[in-house]
Amino acid sequence: MSMRSEHFLNNGTFWKALFSPDAIAVIGANETLGSWGSDAMKAAIAATRAEPTRRAYAVNPNQQHILGVTAYPTILDVPDKIDLAVIVVRASLVPDVMRQCVQKGVKSAVVISAGFGETDEAGTQLEKEVVQIARSGAIRMVGPNCIGHADLYTRVSSLGVVGRTRPGPMALLGQSGTVSSSIIGAAAAMGIGLSKFVSTGNEADLHFEDYLEYLDDDPNTKIITAYVEGLREGHRFFELAKRITRKKPIVILKAGATEGAGKAARSHTGALAGSDAVFSAVFRQTGVVRVDDEEELADVALALLTQPLPKGNGVGILTIGGGFGVMAAEACEREGLKIAALQPQTLAKLDEVLPPRWSHGNPVDMVGVKTLGEFATIMVCLRAMLDDANLDSVIALVANRNYAGDQFRAEMAETEKTLKELGDHAKDLGKPLLLVRRSLTQPMNGVEGPPSYEDKPAEYANPRRAARVLGHLIRYSKYLRHTTPSV
Amino acid sequence: MSMRSEHFLNNGTFWKALFSPDAIAVIGANETLGSWGSDAMKAAIAATRAEPTRRAYAVNPNQQHILGVTAYPTILDVPDKIDLAVIVVRASLVPDVMRQCVQKGVKSAVVISAGFGETDEAGTQLEKEVVQIARSGAIRMVGPNCIGHADLYTRVSSLGVVGRTRPGPMALLGQSGTVSSSIIGAAAAMGIGLSKFVSTGNEADLHFEDYLEYLDDDPNTKIITAYVEGLREGHRFFELAKRITRKKPIVILKAGATEGAGKAARSHTGALAGSDAVFSAVFRQTGVVRVDDEEELADVALALLTQPLPKGNGVGILTIGGGFGVMAAEACEREGLKIAALQPQTLAKLDEVLPPRWSHGNPVDMVGVKTLGEFATIMVCLRAMLDDANLDSVIALVANRNYAGDQFRAEMAETEKTLKELGDHAKDLGKPLLLVRRSLTQPMNGVEGPPSYEDKPAEYANPRRAARVLGHLIRYSKYLRHTTPSV
Repeated sequence: MSMRSEHFLNNGTFWKALFSPDAIAVIGANETLGSWGSDAMKAAIAATRAEPTRRAYAVNPNQQHILGVTAYPTILDVPDKIDLAVIVVRASLVPDVMRQCVQKGVKSAVVISAGFGETDEAGTQLEKEVVQIARSGAIRMVGPNCIGHADLYTRVSSLGVVGRTRPGPMALLGQSGTVSSSIIGAAAAMGIGLSKFVSTGNEADLHFEDYLEYLDDDPNTKIITAYVEGLREGHRFFELAKRITRKKPIVILKAGATEGAGKAARSHTGALAGSDAVFSAVFRQTGVVRVDDEEELADVALALLTQPLPKGNGVGILTIGGGFGVMAAEACEREGLKIAALQPQTLAKLDEVLPPRWSHGNPVDMVGVKTLGEFATIMVCLRAMLDDANLDSVIALVANRNYAGDQFRAEMAETEKTLKELGDHAKDLGKPLLLVRRSLTQPMNGVEGPPSYEDKPAEYANPRRAARVLGHLIRYSKYLRHTTPSV
Repeated sequence: MSMRSEHFLNNGTFWKALFSPDAIAVIGANETLGSWGSDAMKAAIAATRAEPTRRAYAVNPNQQHILGVTAYPTILDVPDKIDLAVIVVRASLVPDVMRQCVQKGVKSAVVISAGFGETDEAGTQLEKEVVQIARSGAIRMVGPNCIGHADLYTRVSSLGVVGRTRPGPMALLGQSGTVSSSIIGAAAAMGIGLSKFVSTGNEADLHFEDYLEYLDDDPNTKIITAYVEGLREGHRFFELAKRITRKKPIVILKAGATEGAGKAARSHTGALAGSDAVFSAVFRQTGVVRVDDEEELADVALALLTQPLPKGNGVGILTIGGGFGVMAAEACEREGLKIAALQPQTLAKLDEVLPPRWSHGNPVDMVGVKTLGEFATIMVCLRAMLDDANLDSVIALVANRNYAGDQFRAEMAETEKTLKELGDHAKDLGKPLLLVRRSLTQPMNGVEGPPSYEDKPAEYANPRRAARVLGHLIRYSKYLRHTTPSV
């Protein structure tokens, strides 16, 4: 481990100034709706509401007040000590602004401004100059070319208002602002809140590895997730990841594996994406969980946060429908899981509660059991499967009733309670229990929601889905062009 | 092509009786909320509301009225000619019921009842007996062991009320009820309505291939989708698919590729899943688009319904953020697409409208352009890319503003209009234009929706995601067990 690494571990002052400052100045604050300067100022004001002793100041030479806060021409005019400076002025002005920050004795800076190392040689020189100035005053710097940072516990943020985002166990380090936003959204959709978020930008001063080392000791962070295009300190990452994954999981969405993607990554943050084979090896050797998109990241985070790690690869599948069982079996086998044979005593227990034509094997197709509402039967089945020594984990494909009415409301409450009990039982046994729930009648009943596809562009939720679709179109098109019609 | 195939093509009487009957009888109708007999009866009643001359009858020896409709002890007691009999009585009663249907002169039957060929030798014998009886009266039969059928244009259905499901261009043939429900839901979420749906069940009489041949000529069906576990008439399927894909795309979600999944499929519908390599070859040779889950099926259906087929594999990527561009490039290259170089004239056009630090290459990272609201810039960029001869398709990764207020409402309306115009332009050029839209500020602002993960079971939207998660857990667990901690 490098000396620098030791330095950061002990530098509590900087991290406190970044995530829990007493006073924040937004340099380049303005009132233009949707601008970085307006978003950052709103965030600073929100941070003062969360902690009444915290202060926020606007710096803008052309205005008296911004969003109700007094504005000063420069940070030097602010009549207070500043812990955190958020810089959103254009790139060419950043050296002067940083000099003033040094003079002011600022402890930490988040440089959102872009137009540095990610552009050209002149930008790279400008970036170096800014880092030199910052270091001359012992200011540690996030960015430049980033979307900011946030601590969801202190409610301090430099990236727009964190608003209703819930505090939670997941930290996120993002080498892309847009992908980070997607990851936060995907996690929120799973009910997972954030501890801390840093958009690392060009990493001119602080590197990905610095944040990683800090999060190792952050008590609010139970799981570290990241979007990575490239790493500047490969060896340090290796040592850190190896140490951290023994107590907290690290989940990384790594992009840039292919040639064109690598080129795009270099032009994006100037990161040397490196050989994907090397990254795969490093991740494998350090226990880092690698995922392909934000959906998979949130999926895995949920399981790592809530489920025990399975002791082996034997999996049991419980299903309300045969087709689901087939699909689940296939998906599991593709992931290297084993559709394990059930023990005789498990078969006997299932025989007692299931209709005679149940599948008598794994996947356990309950056939007659139509909805999760029949919780008594499902509870017995799931418990029997969890208790089966051949099974290290269980996937349950179940369904809700969708009928209105008090009788079913009571039934559903009972079901949720049962599921909770079973989840606890599974945890005691050290076996993950994953649920796939369908609304049996919903597809045909309650789907008026989105407008018809004819009235919309062809739109997909993430790039992987769009790419997958294009691949299909191209193959179909090639097929049509290179085959002759049958007669 | 077999003689049988010719027979079905010309058998308009049967198909009319199935999808547009004048009179329906539900044998085994009842009032138990959520039961098959109650759902099928509700569906029959709904079908009469859609077409006032249509009649629905309940058959149940123990009741006078069911859901407000007169109930008769047997179908023979119904004082009307019956075109479609929906049978939901228990398996052992089906032969007698079918004999009465023959006597009554019924033209088509949907046997929802399970407990036939999918169970054991006795069930297989019972199934053969039912088919013999039906054929003795020229009754063609859907099922048994299915969830029913629906025509969203005539609103005739045997599977619960089709309710608000919109009529549309997509037909679905499902060899699993639960998976079919998921596919319908995924399509609905994309705004794609259904033309016809058949849950094919055990295919004791009518085979998958019969429905496929019928849909070839169905004017309401623009795209045929299916969930397939196995095929009974492989050669006929090959010939049909080869012919049909030249005018309508066929998209098939095929399960049962792996060993455990194949076993599960055999126990589910008794289908011989067959070698997956054979299926892959057949699909490739006949232009069938093969997908892995319901989400991918709906994604591809949307593109096939709305987009021209690309002429080559050169793709252009327009993005609001570098990270999205990297991810999209990687996803595209994994699908065999080429991140093509832009023509000089395209670069020149982009230089005119984008800030100087734009990526100057493909992916086109617009950097300064923050939201789709800046539609003028984005429109110029997209048009320039669509007009680039090196690009056969374009993926646009854009974002919406999420601010409230009238100024943005007007802006968003303008944006939608612009997108529509660009879509039309892309169509004229014969190039697919796929959109991936993000809500830039939403992740941090409006995500209070779902309850915290701590209060819920670990739950996933489909088996693939759950399996993928388990794979990660197992690999992480193995890593922790088989490596020594670093010191």
